[in-house]
Amino acid sequence: MKKGDFGYQIPLELIAEENRAAADGLDRSYDALREDLRRSGLLDRLGTDLDPITEQVSRFDVAVPSWGVSTGATRFARFSLPGEPTNVLDRLTDVATIHRLSGATPRISLHIPWDSTAAAHEVLDHGRRLGLGFDAINSNTFQDQPGQPLSYKFGSLSHTDAAVRAQAIAHNLACCEFGRAIGSDALTVWIGDGGCFPGQVHFRRSLERTIESLREIYGGLPEGWRLFVEYKPFEPAFYSTVIQDWGTAYVISRDLGDRSACLVDLGHHLPNANVEQIVARLIALGKLGGFHFNDSKFADDDLTAGSLRPYQLFLIFCELVDADNDAAVDRRFFHPAYMIDQSHCVKDPIEELIQTAEEIRRAYAKALLVDREALAGFQDRNDVLMAEMTLKAAFETDVRPILRRARVLRKAAADPIAVYRKARYREEKARERRT
Amino acid sequence: MKKGDFGYQIPLELIAEENRAAADGLDRSYDALREDLRRSGLLDRLGTDLDPITEQVSRFDVAVPSWGVSTGATRFARFSLPGEPTNVLDRLTDVATIHRLSGATPRISLHIPWDSTAAAHEVLDHGRRLGLGFDAINSNTFQDQPGQPLSYKFGSLSHTDAAVRAQAIAHNLACCEFGRAIGSDALTVWIGDGGCFPGQVHFRRSLERTIESLREIYGGLPEGWRLFVEYKPFEPAFYSTVIQDWGTAYVISRDLGDRSACLVDLGHHLPNANVEQIVARLIALGKLGGFHFNDSKFADDDLTAGSLRPYQLFLIFCELVDADNDAAVDRRFFHPAYMIDQSHCVKDPIEELIQTAEEIRRAYAKALLVDREALAGFQDRNDVLMAEMTLKAAFETDVRPILRRARVLRKAAADPIAVYRKARYREEKARERRT
Amino acid sequence: MKKGDFGYQIPLELIAEENRAAADGLDRSYDALREDLRRSGLLDRLGTDLDPITEQVSRFDVAVPSWGVSTGATRFARFSLPGEPTNVLDRLTDVATIHRLSGATPRISLHIPWDSTAAAHEVLDHGRRLGLGFDAINSNTFQDQPGQPLSYKFGSLSHTDAAVRAQAIAHNLACCEFGRAIGSDALTVWIGDGGCFPGQVHFRRSLERTIESLREIYGGLPEGWRLFVEYKPFEPAFYSTVIQDWGTAYVISRDLGDRSACLVDLGHHLPNANVEQIVARLIALGKLGGFHFNDSKFADDDLTAGSLRPYQLFLIFCELVDADNDAAVDRRFFHPAYMIDQSHCVKDPIEELIQTAEEIRRAYAKALLVDREALAGFQDRNDVLMAEMTLKAAFETDVRPILRRARVLRKAAADPIAVYRKARYREEKARERRT
Amino acid sequence: MKKGDFGYQIPLELIAEENRAAADGLDRSYDALREDLRRSGLLDRLGTDLDPITEQVSRFDVAVPSWGVSTGATRFARFSLPGEPTNVLDRLTDVATIHRLSGATPRISLHIPWDSTAAAHEVLDHGRRLGLGFDAINSNTFQDQPGQPLSYKFGSLSHTDAAVRAQAIAHNLACCEFGRAIGSDALTVWIGDGGCFPGQVHFRRSLERTIESLREIYGGLPEGWRLFVEYKPFEPAFYSTVIQDWGTAYVISRDLGDRSACLVDLGHHLPNANVEQIVARLIALGKLGGFHFNDSKFADDDLTAGSLRPYQLFLIFCELVDADNDAAVDRRFFHPAYMIDQSHCVKDPIEELIQTAEEIRRAYAKALLVDREALAGFQDRNDVLMAEMTLKAAFETDVRPILRRARVLRKAAADPIAVYRKARYREEKARERRT
Repeated sequence: MKKGDFGYQIPLELIAEENRAAADGLDRSYDALREDLRRSGLLDRLGTDLDPITEQVSRFDVAVPSWGVSTGATRFARFSLPGEPTNVLDRLTDVATIHRLSGATPRISLHIPWDSTAAAHEVLDHGRRLGLGFDAINSNTFQDQPGQPLSYKFGSLSHTDAAVRAQAIAHNLACCEFGRAIGSDALTVWIGDGGCFPGQVHFRRSLERTIESLREIYGGLPEGWRLFVEYKPFEPAFYSTVIQDWGTAYVISRDLGDRSACLVDLGHHLPNANVEQIVARLIALGKLGGFHFNDSKFADDDLTAGSLRPYQLFLIFCELVDADNDAAVDRRFFHPAYMIDQSHCVKDPIEELIQTAEEIRRAYAKALLVDREALAGFQDRNDVLMAEMTLKAAFETDVRPILRRARVLRKAAADPIAVYRKARYREEKARERRT
Repeated sequence: MKKGDFGYQIPLELIAEENRAAADGLDRSYDALREDLRRSGLLDRLGTDLDPITEQVSRFDVAVPSWGVSTGATRFARFSLPGEPTNVLDRLTDVATIHRLSGATPRISLHIPWDSTAAAHEVLDHGRRLGLGFDAINSNTFQDQPGQPLSYKFGSLSHTDAAVRAQAIAHNLACCEFGRAIGSDALTVWIGDGGCFPGQVHFRRSLERTIESLREIYGGLPEGWRLFVEYKPFEPAFYSTVIQDWGTAYVISRDLGDRSACLVDLGHHLPNANVEQIVARLIALGKLGGFHFNDSKFADDDLTAGSLRPYQLFLIFCELVDADNDAAVDRRFFHPAYMIDQSHCVKDPIEELIQTAEEIRRAYAKALLVDREALAGFQDRNDVLMAEMTLKAAFETDVRPILRRARVLRKAAADPIAVYRKARYREEKARERRT
Repeated sequence: MKKGDFGYQIPLELIAEENRAAADGLDRSYDALREDLRRSGLLDRLGTDLDPITEQVSRFDVAVPSWGVSTGATRFARFSLPGEPTNVLDRLTDVATIHRLSGATPRISLHIPWDSTAAAHEVLDHGRRLGLGFDAINSNTFQDQPGQPLSYKFGSLSHTDAAVRAQAIAHNLACCEFGRAIGSDALTVWIGDGGCFPGQVHFRRSLERTIESLREIYGGLPEGWRLFVEYKPFEPAFYSTVIQDWGTAYVISRDLGDRSACLVDLGHHLPNANVEQIVARLIALGKLGGFHFNDSKFADDDLTAGSLRPYQLFLIFCELVDADNDAAVDRRFFHPAYMIDQSHCVKDPIEELIQTAEEIRRAYAKALLVDREALAGFQDRNDVLMAEMTLKAAFETDVRPILRRARVLRKAAADPIAVYRKARYREEKARERRT
Repeated sequence: MKKGDFGYQIPLELIAEENRAAADGLDRSYDALREDLRRSGLLDRLGTDLDPITEQVSRFDVAVPSWGVSTGATRFARFSLPGEPTNVLDRLTDVATIHRLSGATPRISLHIPWDSTAAAHEVLDHGRRLGLGFDAINSNTFQDQPGQPLSYKFGSLSHTDAAVRAQAIAHNLACCEFGRAIGSDALTVWIGDGGCFPGQVHFRRSLERTIESLREIYGGLPEGWRLFVEYKPFEPAFYSTVIQDWGTAYVISRDLGDRSACLVDLGHHLPNANVEQIVARLIALGKLGGFHFNDSKFADDDLTAGSLRPYQLFLIFCELVDADNDAAVDRRFFHPAYMIDQSHCVKDPIEELIQTAEEIRRAYAKALLVDREALAGFQDRNDVLMAEMTLKAAFETDVRPILRRARVLRKAAADPIAVYRKARYREEKARERRT
């Protein structure tokens, strides 16, 4: 296969055909849902009908990380899969496939240097031909790369040695440079800096150094770009991390300026944290930059979004929809970037990302069905049970007809997993990408 | 017993006598410790000798909460003790006893309306005669009091009803009024406001209302006073609290102004939180107002400080001593208030508070023994093991001779628990306070 | 009102009338759901139709704790409600009302001595006339009662003093006596025994004493009774509890014999515990005695079942339904007792219990819709994604029509909260029960 | 360097010389400690003197895992160190060096196939010449090895496919074979089996399969061997693990028989777990097989033992010493294997293991200083504060003189880290092991 070729692609006709075959059942379910929502009076109270909601859902999309299409590893093992992508172009191809099936992932988020920056033009061209856009660029100063002069073993942007910091800053600026060339508009900074033992780092000074480093990067941001500051309580540092929580990420973002905001990775919280409230806090402060969607039970497990705590995901989207409908929220500081960050270990990554896109849209669709006016009334009157039941009513609604219809609207597959398997994409790629 | 009388007090002569009997052994242990610390070169490197350190330790004190001298309750039961105080004057008397024995608790922190504000003069006079000062006043808007017009069931400073907020604001201002009369200089605000269920409260608006209420209270603070904002992740609200973490407390304190700062209760964190780092963050931001010391294993267990995580308590004091020795830390915003907040359920509260004072001073004494210059060097060179061992060397030092000597310096008891028991204070009070 | 009178009861005609008014809409939703489930082929694969499933759901019921109809307290405050029950007969009346509306709570679980044992016959008669049965009896040795000779401050069944243990054993046997008189068939033992500090209790010996005490109680169990051993990791003991987890509860139950089994309170686990797996373990070991349903975010929050982790509740029911359909599971040891244990603080307890019954049935109904055969196939082939989606398909199904229909089948209210409010039951009771 | 050569070894004379130089100071500290302990009456009450205690400490040792002498990785990065071992013989050499310096690590625990089994005789001979013994063998069925016929991606001993289980069983039996050849006497089984998503595994059946597999392994255990069953709540499976907690490990071990027992890895617990109580439970049940020592703050962080929760480590040793002094504990089932399991990421692994051995002995030495008789009395009388202070008195004792003296007794280094650095062992190995 020639470089730049896409190789096998799932035929649009196959999708169309499958959709036609499913159309009748889909229509009936959709109509029954509309009927139900009308009968309950909800659509009236929302001042809309089901189609505009479905239309809105069909326009909601989320960026796929380039590393997401490969099989992820735990620290114990990596179990690879045939047909995994071997370079950045392959990754673009796989993400385009996910989009073709899900209609929900029109952008890819690259990670430097996992994605080679050698040929920006080629990447850009490949993406354009696939109809893919480029989301935030992710820099990497938590690993050493072959030939790298100085090690990040003891930190990067917070390192005690100014030369290491300078190297890390330069890498981030190079990421911006490359990102600009391919049309990105944001840089996501996640650093592994921190300490594994008490005494290892000086808490105050390591934060100061981090902020200084970030100021230099912020100063070099391309025009119109945003800088996302990601927080995480632990791992790979096991005692303290320099940007451990939203509070520290907020302090940093505020210091940097209006073009910096915080990034919420759903798995980056201490046990029992109320993540939806943190989202609300950042919205209130004008500092919600975006999301890394995933799910977790114990730590930063990087599982499929919504796979363990679907109600939490819904509650997060309730905050987003609420803010979106609140005139008091300043639009200049509320336009979150939606990205996925999962590590696909035991499922086919392409399937899992299709499923993820569905889960995220499900939460969004349900949040759109919340009777917000009623909710506000119950909240004002402290009618706790009715306020809760107002949310639950939306959550319990089976929105699968909306999600299927939304995909069909975008010419994607009503049942994307079924089409993916029928098309034997994985098997085709296994053949093509055999080394 | 006439009101205002102290009733039985532990005779100073008994303390002096016991100290004399213990003096020889104490001297030997103390001398051996000094010898050891000299031999290791530590005292040289710290540029001091043991006596100045002991002197410093003897001047470190902590306020006792008035409710701390009674037996606390869990939500399941309360097991009372004979001789518990029956009014605010009794509580002053008990705290004075703790101070007499420990030499470390010269101030009491009152809680309104658990402590009656009926007779400020009487309270002030009783305290003066006992040699007690008055620390921060604690307001209470998490309970309804008999005769109170409006209920706090659904919140106080964050309530949706402006009348309830006004009532809560007025209570806080009345606390200030009373506090001013008895010589306090700070108000600690902890509210139970929050939600038990998703949907119950609107996250953004409830925070806005809280801030507005606090602005009114802040505006009415007596001259020279500080306002401490306490955070807590849960309980009594079980889904969300309006001031859930240091980040929110910081945002509020910053909004209010320079005389407001955050209060760190050691038990008010999610599992695994790095509390010492939070302390460092607040120091860096000039917003560390003070502490509520206690310890916990699971939740807000309110156990004896240092009883479960003594190393954590030491690491917190390392941050405090570090800041205290750092010229870059602005003194105007770094003078934390040290208070205890424990619920004494299965020990005699007086004994437990004596023990607490010892534990806190122990952590402080050990933190003073950290070879800070060496530590800084190891941190700069990323000599992780030596940095850690530098802290451990201080932590492993047996500072009991310092603590005993520090008490004797203040005419308190070398072995306060033994004297307390020998003096049969509890039994005497049981007789006096029998109703 | 004469003792033994029920006072105001919600008229059956009101329920019937409301159901009639709602019948048309309900039928349509129900038919549409049936249509959908048929179209998807699920009903065929389950070898049934919707009505038998609805019938099964309508027969699923759960016991209400007598203390549940009163407003619960946190350790900080209790905010009472007008019309709360003032004695055990009132509590029976309220539970009967919950059953009348929900059709799901035909039994009450008493707590001794919160419920007076003075007049077993009267209680039995009152219950019979209300059509209520009596579930497991709950003993209480975690509080001291007025006039009680020995204190449980330092434990009950595990106490170091044999006399205290004897008193606690006698109380449990008295509970059995009373329970037998009213027709209960189980005793639930939850003890608060444990330690708040390291060193307080000797781990091995306190467990030995507990087992010895329980053997005596077990020996005195009435014929046909079961003894449920409840575990809890903390509270009111804050460092260690004597029956801290399912492992210890299992060891005890096994020691006692076949008529003893473990009780799973959903809120009694450490953060992140996989409760559904614990349920599976106990089923496998023939030691799943029953449940205390509730939900929690942080600790033993005692919130409405399904209010925070609805997916977890569903997964627990998946284990129950799976076991119920597994011939390999020994029926003699698999007939769990379903009870609620919540503390109703900010909602009207009657409303919250109605809601709880709905949530529990919802989880059950969804679990009945799992395509178990397909699931087993995906599990065997390690098709992780399809296995997960098989569960999700059931969870996403909107089963509200089933729940409403199931209530109507039992002459209960299609919309029980609406009827409860319309009937002004609380207001009526406030008048009747005014002291 | 010829294969089988040790290469550079730290000269015994250097150690002796350094010890001589330190002898005077060491003697003084030791004598002062003895003086203090005598004066307090503790040694009398323990019925011993300091030397026998020191002797006992000097005989306490712990096995080092062969993988521990290499730099560990997180799932994000691995930062290697010059001079790391390149094969099993190098690892033996490094462990011998740790023992030479610490006098506390006379055995190595091998991991198959990370340690090649190609030449058992050579390994045995190398170990013998170094004076090293061989501890438990660790099998590995959580990774796929090159050329392995079947994958462990979806489990090993619990796999749905009998062929995969057979392969995993065969591997474990091969480990025993190899272990027998080199003189081991135990097999440690830790499996990564579990599920990442609800529905992935059938809880009951996967446990059944695991037990069946383990029965086969148990049946093939060499004479005199023990089988340790290790539990872990999560990672690499992120939703459920087949042996998730001590309860499940206990059930398995009991099923297998008397030669099977549970292995407690300190990092394998849910947040807030009371590990010392679990240790007590396993002792009571005769099923405490051994330990994997390490420390953690958040998850299975694999940090230096005692580095974050030194008090917990002490409390665990209190249980061990208590059991050791309790005639009621059956000796046949109480002889735990002490092993280290840490991942050394940011320290020199050799230094960290020396430090670890010190920390473990520190906890042991302090536990030996507990006044057990006094403690028992306070426990019996529920004198909570004095019981706690009895433990604290031991914990606060500075036992460094004991630890140093214990090493000198074994001809190891009084200050092992200093000698290690002075000897430039790492630099020498970097030269020797350069590829």
